Amino acid sequence: MNNYQTYFEQNRDKHLGELKEWLSIPSISALSAHKEDVLRAAEWLKDALVRAGLENVTLHETAGHPILTADHLHAEGAPTLLIYGHYDVQPVDPLNLWDTPPFEPNEREGKLYARGATDDKGQVFLHVKALEAILAQEGKLPVNVKLCIEGEEEVSSPNLVEFLDANAAALAADAVVISDTSLLERGKPAISTGLRGLCSLEIALNTANTDLHSGSFGGGVPNALHAIVSLLNSLHDEKTGRVLVEGFYDDVLPLTDELRGELVKMQYDEEKLRNDLGLEALFGEEGYSFLERTGVRPTLELNGVYGGFQGEGTKTVIPKEAHAKITCRLVANQDPQDILNKIERHLHARTPVGAKLTLVPGEKAFAFNIDPTHPFLQKAADAYEAVYGTRALFTKDGGSIPIIEAFSRVLEAPVVLMGFGLPDENLHAPNEHFNLENFDKGLLTLVHYLKSV
Amino acid sequence: MNNYQTYFEQNRDKHLGELKEWLSIPSISALSAHKEDVLRAAEWLKDALVRAGLENVTLHETAGHPILTADHLHAEGAPTLLIYGHYDVQPVDPLNLWDTPPFEPNEREGKLYARGATDDKGQVFLHVKALEAILAQEGKLPVNVKLCIEGEEEVSSPNLVEFLDANAAALAADAVVISDTSLLERGKPAISTGLRGLCSLEIALNTANTDLHSGSFGGGVPNALHAIVSLLNSLHDEKTGRVLVEGFYDDVLPLTDELRGELVKMQYDEEKLRNDLGLEALFGEEGYSFLERTGVRPTLELNGVYGGFQGEGTKTVIPKEAHAKITCRLVANQDPQDILNKIERHLHARTPVGAKLTLVPGEKAFAFNIDPTHPFLQKAADAYEAVYGTRALFTKDGGSIPIIEAFSRVLEAPVVLMGFGLPDENLHAPNEHFNLENFDKGLLTLVHYLKSV
Repeated sequence: MNNYQTYFEQNRDKHLGELKEWLSIPSISALSAHKEDVLRAAEWLKDALVRAGLENVTLHETAGHPILTADHLHAEGAPTLLIYGHYDVQPVDPLNLWDTPPFEPNEREGKLYARGATDDKGQVFLHVKALEAILAQEGKLPVNVKLCIEGEEEVSSPNLVEFLDANAAALAADAVVISDTSLLERGKPAISTGLRGLCSLEIALNTANTDLHSGSFGGGVPNALHAIVSLLNSLHDEKTGRVLVEGFYDDVLPLTDELRGELVKMQYDEEKLRNDLGLEALFGEEGYSFLERTGVRPTLELNGVYGGFQGEGTKTVIPKEAHAKITCRLVANQDPQDILNKIERHLHARTPVGAKLTLVPGEKAFAFNIDPTHPFLQKAADAYEAVYGTRALFTKDGGSIPIIEAFSRVLEAPVVLMGFGLPDENLHAPNEHFNLENFDKGLLTLVHYLKSV
Repeated sequence: MNNYQTYFEQNRDKHLGELKEWLSIPSISALSAHKEDVLRAAEWLKDALVRAGLENVTLHETAGHPILTADHLHAEGAPTLLIYGHYDVQPVDPLNLWDTPPFEPNEREGKLYARGATDDKGQVFLHVKALEAILAQEGKLPVNVKLCIEGEEEVSSPNLVEFLDANAAALAADAVVISDTSLLERGKPAISTGLRGLCSLEIALNTANTDLHSGSFGGGVPNALHAIVSLLNSLHDEKTGRVLVEGFYDDVLPLTDELRGELVKMQYDEEKLRNDLGLEALFGEEGYSFLERTGVRPTLELNGVYGGFQGEGTKTVIPKEAHAKITCRLVANQDPQDILNKIERHLHARTPVGAKLTLVPGEKAFAFNIDPTHPFLQKAADAYEAVYGTRALFTKDGGSIPIIEAFSRVLEAPVVLMGFGLPDENLHAPNEHFNLENFDKGLLTLVHYLKSV
């Protein structure tokens, strides 16, 4: 592997230059104004894959943003890996909280700052360069590889399942490899064997047909903000941190002593987390640790609440409408549609007098779980050990990659989640970044995995 | 009075043209970007007063927006009236809910639509044109008048009290006349003998030092939106509509049978109001009618609540901060500073685990009440009767004109609230307008009052 270390050191500036070029394209899939940018990011990757030596590099149109596939299938008798990732990124607001502009990649203190740096362009880029390196050094790959990189992961992959179903034979593989998760912390690699599911819901409450003056009407008419505050407050028990939607926990599996033991092994430092986040206290469901709360317990989170006057100073208005955005992270056997139904029943039953409720359900994804004893996962742990000097732990990750459950089901293959991010890299937040120590080690780890699997 | 009717009919188009010119100046006092516009509106009025024949027309600089004074003091032996009003207007958002732009005055179906049409440029304009008419027709005024028109009423007149104190002798009058209120309903004039006081407060709740991804952290850290929803919900009893801040009602006077009887006389149609506002139900403090709730009972209203993602689609973020804007309308002996102290104590005691509370107190004004048997009020009721054919009722108004208590105290004069708006003219809301029936009748009523007082 020494020659690879030298190769990556010699090419480091060139590689980082390319990645910065890609990161400067604002491929925000959620905002229609950025549709052309998303396409530009796909075309950039297409060119990069061709340059790397991949074959059959193809952009597939969808009803939304395109899917990119490529392959290299010349390792007879060797297993076939399907590498999945995404080239789209999250929105960037609040923009004023970024220290440097989100689409002007900036390197400082060993970190590369840009929207998409760690989620997921930076991590997809590792695969491209690992494959390119092996082809450049050895003229062939030790395994067969297929790539499937999409542009709609941040909007819950509305077109990928159909694409997988239609192309199941062409995409067939012995394992699916995805780098879109994190180490446990710096120097502590992790392979996620569980991801939470997801469902989302938008709420609107309407009262009068116009905003009203709080002098003439205050105290005598419903206030949409009072109504939404009351409605949203009914969703949680503020003492125990539990979700109060009836039946919310019905399909959650009890936490086994075995899994609890595995999570304890992580020696997760809650006090350090609390300090890093500048929090006076962590908070969550009573009776569970932070890793249990985020790994194996479901949650219902308010992601946005708004109504009325937000400007400078005072406006004595009684607003006619109020809004909220909700997402749930789901675990085990929770069915996202069933959870949405239960939340809708809860909200309808508690809508305050004089308010009208409108609900718009959004994304839905099941949770994912895999047995860590599978050989493809064990070899991934070995690859991390070879590079990081410490074997990867098998963890439960709180995030959702909605498409994983589909890969697992359609391709009937194990999914290996080899992440190279860090949990504090501000993904989905201002100042997203990628720690370049894991950029360097990630390249070597992937080369090691491809050569040993 | 017939000659005045003819005069106003002949000059109607000219008058409305002038008013539209004034209304097209966006004199939003709350927004510093409009500072020059506020000054332009003051200068416009200055010119109009000079043209009308007023004397000593003077713009007085203040730490904020200027105060305009003028007078006409040649009616020896007759009483002196001080006319107060304001040329500043409320902000206009949400702009998309206006049918025509707020600063492009538009006349349709007998109504003039524009920000400030009824609050208060339109009503100040009535005084200017009533004085101009008498001077044009008769060459002199039957009373002595002083005008004091400010540009900061919508931001609670931060500089007017100091101005009144410094100029108490120059502004001395037998009565203060203000047109900044409403008829009870179309054809039913009213003189307000009570206005509610006001206090305001901005709230910020902060949790982590950055927005967090709801996958990695959801369920394990405090969410600023959950915290604010819980905190704000603690302010009201959603069943009884009562404010739950300890001591909030301590200084409220019990509703007497006499006042209750007077309010019943208004024959206020709550069902019509409910229908007009498109509400499924009115809502407010248990045991009180709409007029009681808005006239003689205090209220605490959320005017704005916001935090997290407000854009298109979903963003799986746990926001690090959340905000709320609160105003209270106060009655009787409630001290605005005391109420702010009580609210602050309430909020500090209930701030959820892991959240930091920041409070910024704002405006403060006492409630105002006057005895309706005072001759200056009785003659105003007569003037309405002469023009509208129905005598003005004496009402309790829910709004606040913070400066009235100061006029009453500094000048030791009765305050006559002769309003010509209507309660549904969307003041402080999109599509503010002024019913031109009351423009026409208002001019005549003021002429009648000036000639008879």
